Amino acid sequence: MLESQGIKIVVIGGGTGSFALLNGLKHYTQGITALVSMADDGGSTGVLRDELGALPPGDIRQCLVALSRSSYTMRELFNYRFPKNSFAGGHSFGNLFLSALEKITESFPEAVGVASEVLNIVGRVVPITLDNMRLVMEDEAGKLLRNEHAISDATFKGKLMQFHLEPKAAINPTAEEAILAADIVVLAPGDLYTSLAPALLVNGVSKALGRAEAKVVYVCNLVTTFGQTDEFAVHDFANEIERFIGTKRLDYVLYNTKAPSEELLKRYAKEKEFGVKVDEAILETAHYQAIGAELISETIQAKDPHDTLFQRTYIRHDGEKVAKQLLKLYFR
Amino acid sequence: MLESQGIKIVVIGGGTGSFALLNGLKHYTQGITALVSMADDGGSTGVLRDELGALPPGDIRQCLVALSRSSYTMRELFNYRFPKNSFAGGHSFGNLFLSALEKITESFPEAVGVASEVLNIVGRVVPITLDNMRLVMEDEAGKLLRNEHAISDATFKGKLMQFHLEPKAAINPTAEEAILAADIVVLAPGDLYTSLAPALLVNGVSKALGRAEAKVVYVCNLVTTFGQTDEFAVHDFANEIERFIGTKRLDYVLYNTKAPSEELLKRYAKEKEFGVKVDEAILETAHYQAIGAELISETIQAKDPHDTLFQRTYIRHDGEKVAKQLLKLYFR
Repeated sequence: MLESQGIKIVVIGGGTGSFALLNGLKHYTQGITALVSMADDGGSTGVLRDELGALPPGDIRQCLVALSRSSYTMRELFNYRFPKNSFAGGHSFGNLFLSALEKITESFPEAVGVASEVLNIVGRVVPITLDNMRLVMEDEAGKLLRNEHAISDATFKGKLMQFHLEPKAAINPTAEEAILAADIVVLAPGDLYTSLAPALLVNGVSKALGRAEAKVVYVCNLVTTFGQTDEFAVHDFANEIERFIGTKRLDYVLYNTKAPSEELLKRYAKEKEFGVKVDEAILETAHYQAIGAELISETIQAKDPHDTLFQRTYIRHDGEKVAKQLLKLYFR
Repeated sequence: MLESQGIKIVVIGGGTGSFALLNGLKHYTQGITALVSMADDGGSTGVLRDELGALPPGDIRQCLVALSRSSYTMRELFNYRFPKNSFAGGHSFGNLFLSALEKITESFPEAVGVASEVLNIVGRVVPITLDNMRLVMEDEAGKLLRNEHAISDATFKGKLMQFHLEPKAAINPTAEEAILAADIVVLAPGDLYTSLAPALLVNGVSKALGRAEAKVVYVCNLVTTFGQTDEFAVHDFANEIERFIGTKRLDYVLYNTKAPSEELLKRYAKEKEFGVKVDEAILETAHYQAIGAELISETIQAKDPHDTLFQRTYIRHDGEKVAKQLLKLYFR
């Protein structure tokens, strides 16, 4: 189905993390498959899971909007959040759309399919698993923390925690096919433990990555997350990812070399978030090839009216620049 | 814009009342304009008006679905109601869609335009006014009853009540143009006092009907409404409509001649609702031409999976049959 639609690129990640990448990639190929992590259970998504028994729509929604060719209004609509003091307070419209469709069609993939048509997307958005599961973290004392939202708020104190999914989740066959057919598999930046980990921990993902002929590229985060990835350098992120995959499967690690402005760094420092360090000596000896490039957006302060998600964060990837680096890898 | 799109038919009414007509007409002409009454303030629509300051979406939604060429799933989605026990309990998805878009675009017509594209409708759906108003009824004692919902529940005891809109509402210029350009203006069946009256009472509607060259046709209700139109015959409905228009503007009155099954009539009688009587002697002397025809659906018990609204009621117009009668009038 995706034959002759250009380079086949699979992007694995959550919503916010994949957004810039997908938004950049869609201008270069139609052969995009966004494989979406399905462990989110916070905010609007959490309520929809609890009250409607829906699969988590939030990250799917963000990927759909990123790949959309629709008008500004339609994209805005999907990200629109109802006012806090209203009956649907804090719910995003796109989440309601997906969950309502899921209830009607009794099929989450079908719901995503209808939304894909409505938003006229490039490529496709595929849940990495269709099993309804939660992310569980085991802390040093063996205590289990049972949802993504709580894990986001936890502080690891520099320790590497153990994670698993409950119940065990199996890879969506469509996701497996996409990985096996891909030219490039990109592991998107974003929340390492609460987005990428639960995607990689789905049964079958690691195996598919092992069997796939695709180049596997990790696009490294730009900043650390307080309590979780403090002090992390590029290779620490890469190591953690391979811990979740279970093998040394990364072919490339793409990292940013351009420092954000002092002003921005100061603002982040107040939240105890810092630029990810680069230890070139370690990267040179790594089994993967580490490629440094300027990957952050130069128009940091500019608001792109088409990308509301970009307005939330300020140190961010430039989707176009990352896309070009990925294509360079493909053609080298 | 609607030139060369076939016969130009304007249908004035609420949601449920216009549904069958629009659904039937869309197969015969693309030149349909559904002019929608804007006084609804009950249920999901009422909450959206109160909590979001939105214009009433419910009747607009039903007309959009009636005119939609989209898949069954998309039409189902717009009519989907979230489960009672969920945060969005009882809200229809289409209402949320329209109200969210209205907030984003800050324009109700623009919101309706986007929804029209998404639902791929035939013709167009136009709010009869863009003013935020309520229907007010003055009872015999001069007491004011201040919303459509309360008026629906009131009992008139056979008296003809006075109605007005608060604040005064002006006709939407697009609605006025449609009436002036129409070949046929259809006054749809439905709630006489809470759907058709507040549409006809909008300032400028009566004047536009007076100036228009269109034939004006009233498609009479099939059953009476307890407390409001008890004992009404066809000519009583027609008289009330002309009372709201303010002149004897009806050219034709289309009424049903085929009795529903005994079983159905019994079920309705339990709700104190009865078939509308036909007094042929009076109709023969009327200034309008009264045309009797078989207008009810023969497949009364059959569920049409594409028309969920039809499943609510059982004595109903057959949209196709009504459409054919209207076209006959045009070509005679």
